[in-house]
Amino acid sequence: MLRILFPYIFILLLVSGCGENSATTIETVDPLPSWQGDSRDALIEFVESVTNEGGANYVPPADRIATFDNDGTLWAEQPVYFQLIFAFDRVKQLADQHPEWQGDSLMSAAIRGDVKTVSGFGMGGLLKIVAASHAGMTTTEFEGIVTEWIETARHPVSGRKYTEMVYQPMLELLAYLRANDFKTFIVSGGGIEFMRPWAEAVYGIPPEQVMGSSIKVEWEESGDSFVLRRLPELNFIDDKEGKPVGIHYFIGKRPLAAFGNSDGDLQMLQWTDGREGPSFQMYIHHTDAEREWAYDRDSHIGGLDKGLDIAAEKGWVVVDMKNDWKTIYPPASE
Amino acid sequence: MLRILFPYIFILLLVSGCGENSATTIETVDPLPSWQGDSRDALIEFVESVTNEGGANYVPPADRIATFDNDGTLWAEQPVYFQLIFAFDRVKQLADQHPEWQGDSLMSAAIRGDVKTVSGFGMGGLLKIVAASHAGMTTTEFEGIVTEWIETARHPVSGRKYTEMVYQPMLELLAYLRANDFKTFIVSGGGIEFMRPWAEAVYGIPPEQVMGSSIKVEWEESGDSFVLRRLPELNFIDDKEGKPVGIHYFIGKRPLAAFGNSDGDLQMLQWTDGREGPSFQMYIHHTDAEREWAYDRDSHIGGLDKGLDIAAEKGWVVVDMKNDWKTIYPPASE
Repeated sequence: MLRILFPYIFILLLVSGCGENSATTIETVDPLPSWQGDSRDALIEFVESVTNEGGANYVPPADRIATFDNDGTLWAEQPVYFQLIFAFDRVKQLADQHPEWQGDSLMSAAIRGDVKTVSGFGMGGLLKIVAASHAGMTTTEFEGIVTEWIETARHPVSGRKYTEMVYQPMLELLAYLRANDFKTFIVSGGGIEFMRPWAEAVYGIPPEQVMGSSIKVEWEESGDSFVLRRLPELNFIDDKEGKPVGIHYFIGKRPLAAFGNSDGDLQMLQWTDGREGPSFQMYIHHTDAEREWAYDRDSHIGGLDKGLDIAAEKGWVVVDMKNDWKTIYPPASE
Repeated sequence: MLRILFPYIFILLLVSGCGENSATTIETVDPLPSWQGDSRDALIEFVESVTNEGGANYVPPADRIATFDNDGTLWAEQPVYFQLIFAFDRVKQLADQHPEWQGDSLMSAAIRGDVKTVSGFGMGGLLKIVAASHAGMTTTEFEGIVTEWIETARHPVSGRKYTEMVYQPMLELLAYLRANDFKTFIVSGGGIEFMRPWAEAVYGIPPEQVMGSSIKVEWEESGDSFVLRRLPELNFIDDKEGKPVGIHYFIGKRPLAAFGNSDGDLQMLQWTDGREGPSFQMYIHHTDAEREWAYDRDSHIGGLDKGLDIAAEKGWVVVDMKNDWKTIYPPASE
């Protein structure tokens, strides 16, 4: 009998694995193996409720938009944002061509990787370093520079590649949401072109779903060839109130779910919270000094102060990294 | 025997109808019934070649990005851009609240729908009308205003709804490309928020794949509620060299195929043409004075001059609307 039924069982599996609601069917494998506790339960309860076709909270796939901050939400951000380390490395690499930087206290601090001195120069100093490290080349050249760095550079504390300092629980969450027909977007304060070269391989998020801060690019014709050249001029800051503004330009819909870890993500979470119908907000709270870092209200990087209060008030989910995540990073490559 | 094989045949059909390459299988229905001649052949040849998995021109689905201009490419644009008619209608509607407009030669011309006089005021005049008609309200309010207009307004010549002045052959082309795992985007000089409210229903293109020109929006908090308010200030002009720039910000990849109808689309087509590997460029040439409009080199709206020469030089496909399109518009609703 089983022999006769076998093709039909096979058909059943094919049907259930095909089309829009593939992941809402028979699930024998835990979709979030690195999660435990209340935040895990809240995620599963939310996803099941908005994908339950007969239910009161059902949301059609087209509106299942999930937005993720990057630094401190999808990958680590200590001791400083990884993009700043990239900028310092790049300045160091270019130093031979710029002997004048030796006499410049800002640029020589960048060459030494001296974050404290660089910070003293404020936004103006940072922009000067961005101009030196991120502008002047074509978009294609910059993509090559980022790709080479991300493949070779190592984190100063862990010795891991930066793409191995992504959070394993968040990789599972991204996959779980996509399996439930969510469209996943990055909405980062970091540079859009610093993330796009590797975000698809690492997070499964294609370039057109990666948004972030940007500098201006300019169309340049020379004879029969055309390039986009990166200019030393800010185009858009995708942080704080810039996040809902960027979401509006790029996506044109309010997210159904938003994930962040700092006050820079607060407006994105508030914008999502104001959506008509169901919505979901989650803060990753860095509470694990042993396996990662512990920081919140007073931190210069990824400060989470006002957001913690509002999360409590609103009932948003706050992930206690130390207790809610069984693992922090995926296995390192070597 | 057939009886025993039946389940397996069924499985075969399911497998072939499922997943990424669904449309490359058994096709008995003509995917482009309103097309004929060389441009039809070129489209089919191109799509078949980039989706042929063993072939030299194969392009994986993730890179099958197709970008479309809107005005004059997906829908008509005569006697003036439809968004300008919307702006005039809006100004007319607001005139009672602005008695001062009666003494203003620009605004009173807009109220009369007098395009010629308004044109005499140049870009400054246009921006004043945009400010009066497109700014001040929240993004949600503006969406409502556009939605109401698009559902009720009628074209001055055809008497049709504007969404019934989309091109039937282009609707077929959009569907054909998507069935072959292309991701279809609008890249329009028109306003992004003027298109998004109806583009999904009419073209099957969701808001996050609609890009265009935009004005600035501002995050506004009042107590516990948050809105984005539209400001009378330009944010981005998605025309000419703005098109590849916009594509770079929004998509981050060069399109595999690009479709336009005017010199405003030239740089988008050139950017696509410069892609490594195969690519496809198509100009819609308005040659049908009887069923639509005939215009090109000297037209104020949708001028196609330099583009025609470069298309000939580069061998881009130029659609002769009169001969290549069996139908122009879909059936009208009433």
